[in-house]
Amino acid sequence: MKTLGEIVQLVGGVLEGDAKCKISGFAGIDDAKAGDLTFVESKKYRKFLNSTSASAVIIPLNVKPPSSLNVIFHRSPSEAFAAAVEALSPVEAIHRSGIHPKAEIEDGAVIGKNVCIDAYAVVRSGAKIGNGTILYPFVYIGGKAVIGNNCLLYPNITVHERCVIGDKVIIHSGTVIGSDGFGYSTKHGKHLKIPQRGTVEIGNDVEIGSNVTIDRARIGKTIIGQGTKIDNLVMIAHNVIIGEDSIIVAQTGISGSTELGRNVTVAGQAGFAGHIKIGDGSIIGARSGVLKSLPPKSIVSGFPAMNHRKELNLLAYYRKLPEVLKRLNDLEKAEKEKNKD
Amino acid sequence: MKTLGEIVQLVGGVLEGDAKCKISGFAGIDDAKAGDLTFVESKKYRKFLNSTSASAVIIPLNVKPPSSLNVIFHRSPSEAFAAAVEALSPVEAIHRSGIHPKAEIEDGAVIGKNVCIDAYAVVRSGAKIGNGTILYPFVYIGGKAVIGNNCLLYPNITVHERCVIGDKVIIHSGTVIGSDGFGYSTKHGKHLKIPQRGTVEIGNDVEIGSNVTIDRARIGKTIIGQGTKIDNLVMIAHNVIIGEDSIIVAQTGISGSTELGRNVTVAGQAGFAGHIKIGDGSIIGARSGVLKSLPPKSIVSGFPAMNHRKELNLLAYYRKLPEVLKRLNDLEKAEKEKNKD
Amino acid sequence: MKTLGEIVQLVGGVLEGDAKCKISGFAGIDDAKAGDLTFVESKKYRKFLNSTSASAVIIPLNVKPPSSLNVIFHRSPSEAFAAAVEALSPVEAIHRSGIHPKAEIEDGAVIGKNVCIDAYAVVRSGAKIGNGTILYPFVYIGGKAVIGNNCLLYPNITVHERCVIGDKVIIHSGTVIGSDGFGYSTKHGKHLKIPQRGTVEIGNDVEIGSNVTIDRARIGKTIIGQGTKIDNLVMIAHNVIIGEDSIIVAQTGISGSTELGRNVTVAGQAGFAGHIKIGDGSIIGARSGVLKSLPPKSIVSGFPAMNHRKELNLLAYYRKLPEVLKRLNDLEKAEKEKNKD
Repeated sequence: MKTLGEIVQLVGGVLEGDAKCKISGFAGIDDAKAGDLTFVESKKYRKFLNSTSASAVIIPLNVKPPSSLNVIFHRSPSEAFAAAVEALSPVEAIHRSGIHPKAEIEDGAVIGKNVCIDAYAVVRSGAKIGNGTILYPFVYIGGKAVIGNNCLLYPNITVHERCVIGDKVIIHSGTVIGSDGFGYSTKHGKHLKIPQRGTVEIGNDVEIGSNVTIDRARIGKTIIGQGTKIDNLVMIAHNVIIGEDSIIVAQTGISGSTELGRNVTVAGQAGFAGHIKIGDGSIIGARSGVLKSLPPKSIVSGFPAMNHRKELNLLAYYRKLPEVLKRLNDLEKAEKEKNKD
Repeated sequence: MKTLGEIVQLVGGVLEGDAKCKISGFAGIDDAKAGDLTFVESKKYRKFLNSTSASAVIIPLNVKPPSSLNVIFHRSPSEAFAAAVEALSPVEAIHRSGIHPKAEIEDGAVIGKNVCIDAYAVVRSGAKIGNGTILYPFVYIGGKAVIGNNCLLYPNITVHERCVIGDKVIIHSGTVIGSDGFGYSTKHGKHLKIPQRGTVEIGNDVEIGSNVTIDRARIGKTIIGQGTKIDNLVMIAHNVIIGEDSIIVAQTGISGSTELGRNVTVAGQAGFAGHIKIGDGSIIGARSGVLKSLPPKSIVSGFPAMNHRKELNLLAYYRKLPEVLKRLNDLEKAEKEKNKD
Repeated sequence: MKTLGEIVQLVGGVLEGDAKCKISGFAGIDDAKAGDLTFVESKKYRKFLNSTSASAVIIPLNVKPPSSLNVIFHRSPSEAFAAAVEALSPVEAIHRSGIHPKAEIEDGAVIGKNVCIDAYAVVRSGAKIGNGTILYPFVYIGGKAVIGNNCLLYPNITVHERCVIGDKVIIHSGTVIGSDGFGYSTKHGKHLKIPQRGTVEIGNDVEIGSNVTIDRARIGKTIIGQGTKIDNLVMIAHNVIIGEDSIIVAQTGISGSTELGRNVTVAGQAGFAGHIKIGDGSIIGARSGVLKSLPPKSIVSGFPAMNHRKELNLLAYYRKLPEVLKRLNDLEKAEKEKNKD
């Protein structure tokens, strides 16, 4: 438990209200109760300022709060709130440490210092596990795979042989790194498997959600750039290259050999054709289907994806189709009338 | 093996045919053979009534069967058939019982009576497993997680720490409950992880398919209401709330903080934007993309989702576009002709 | 290391260049370096012929290469390249052999010769594992399931009881075979589970990607025909039947009881309604939503899916909508002018 005064010292901002007010918990503004700190950032949630039971709210600089409420004005309420949660509710040590007697580590695996290799984790010969890295139960690390320092691999993850993962990478449960690319050569209607001999390389500070699949390259590497964050159930095909600090939201699929630049944002359930290049800083709308390469800073949506403004414009016209037909009918009627004359 | 007479006594309905006819198996109407009981409900399958080799068919009250066929008239053929299958083909005891010597149960876990904790299942300290609950191999139950009574968790499931699961919940293989929500705060193009400290709470009688992902709340809870059924490969983001008795079909994605009411039906491959509310009893068509809140009993489809009738109407107009262009050309030509005069 | 002359003898084709040139590696044309063999097939990549650092390139018969480059003319450069990779970079023996002491094989399981049952794999009583088959760690084989000869099952796979898998089948990590179909009978708003008593049957030479889900039939069988290849994160519902030698690309979903013929190609993120039939040799475009049965050799796209040419045509008209409105306005203005006169 901390006072509001102490919290402001931790997270910055300007307090308006009772510095001695005690904060014992955290919650979203719509279900916060007395004792809780909360925050408001998007306009959508500002209406709750008048009804919240929270003991204090972090708000943007330009918002006028009800006079009765303890508030912290902050340039970035969301960030300040995250910092307060981080500082005041330290997570109990949920990760285990050490090598569990039921871990299966083959001879010839190289294990760093201060690791956790949990019960029923398997590390194959020739694999390297960096210092401070944690492997939960049912994690499989294939032969000659390299996992960097301070990584966190949750249960039921498969990392196939020769894949390379950087430092401070977090991978959530059920994710598969380095399964074979989907490649066949078809002869007389039969599909012959093309050997998939490449690997996957994942940069530092990448986070990958649950049940994601990232296929190994046919030859060469499938690459996930440093700092990129990937949500659940995303499919990344063989030989895809994703630049640094990109964001790929859930259930998106990226076809083989396509390249995304740096700082690209892909909203949920989008899809990309193969062998195209998406320029740095582009934004791809939810459920877009991108079929062609895009220059840097493109903002697209729809299927086939096009400039987002153009797509909204076409959608507006689309909704006018009944009106268009009516006006066309009227003109034709007028035309007929005239011909009668 | 039972006679038709015995089956009618079990499932109700009115028999027309040979009560002594012996039933030895069950099949769909298009591949049933002599000795099988089958059923017909949808109109699509009624054509098979004349050609089926089944020994008997359960049919709706208003259907006229071929005179040669043994039939049971029933208000709900599908239900009656399910009851017959349930009663006559008791599943062999496929679930194991007891605590397997190779299960890994940490000190401080609380285990109910008559459970099965199978080989290579892991239960962390502080977790509770209710009476009669079955954990298959490679199930991971995190610290302080609570699993209710009579639950069934198939292989390769991860339930993260502090998540709470009700009674009689069935979870299929590969599903992940309580992975981190996808939340970052972006500063100078770098994405900083926002701590995800909340949990997931799943009501009684919920069933969750294979390879589903349900993320924990940032703060507070992601909630799946009692009686709700979720199909395979569905993505449920942090802080989502789903009401009671809803149906979410495969590969649907629900973005953060969105709320679905009770008895909502979502068809396959649909998507929902974040921070919206879907009213009770709404029906969302397959592949819809829902971007706005919807009042109760809405029926929507398309992307962006709109009233289903309106969408069908617009689609009909869309298909007329070639004709619209032709008519426009004709009018313009007539106009030009006139101007010539 | 082999010479170009030796490679041509292995893969066929006609060499133009230095037969003694030594090849030490393989790469895509855009990142090949000295010593590498590469290939070009699609037009998209031909531009790299002038700039590649590769020591040799396999090219189609009708392509004119820069005179300075060692080339092998070949009817199918992609196939020739795959054959060269296969022959010259033999994979180290990454699969283990034998039964690991930490495998859990119940009494009454029938295990073939020359198998690998790896650490922490579980094989239930009554299951059969064919000769030469490899089960990686955390593979679960349910009671009475049958796995054929020379299959390869990667980590974290669940094969439920009574499912039958043919010979030479490859299944990638995280995939679930035989989870319950999604079937409920709804009464007064409550969803009662319909027992799912059928199985899954998978033919010879099938390959299934990572985190795929294939549900068991309600009664009867869900069937994947011989030679069919399924990409990652695909959902195949109960009682679906897929013919021989079909291709299903990633994140596609096929609803219950739908049948696909032989040699059907389904591009990524497509969806199929239930209870429909898709004729042999059909091609379904990416992100299509197929709602109706299709005759053999159909080529469709869009949602609802229609003839692909027709869909492209409608899309072209759609993009003309702003122009249509403008022309309509002009006509109306002309009409008004006239009425003034």
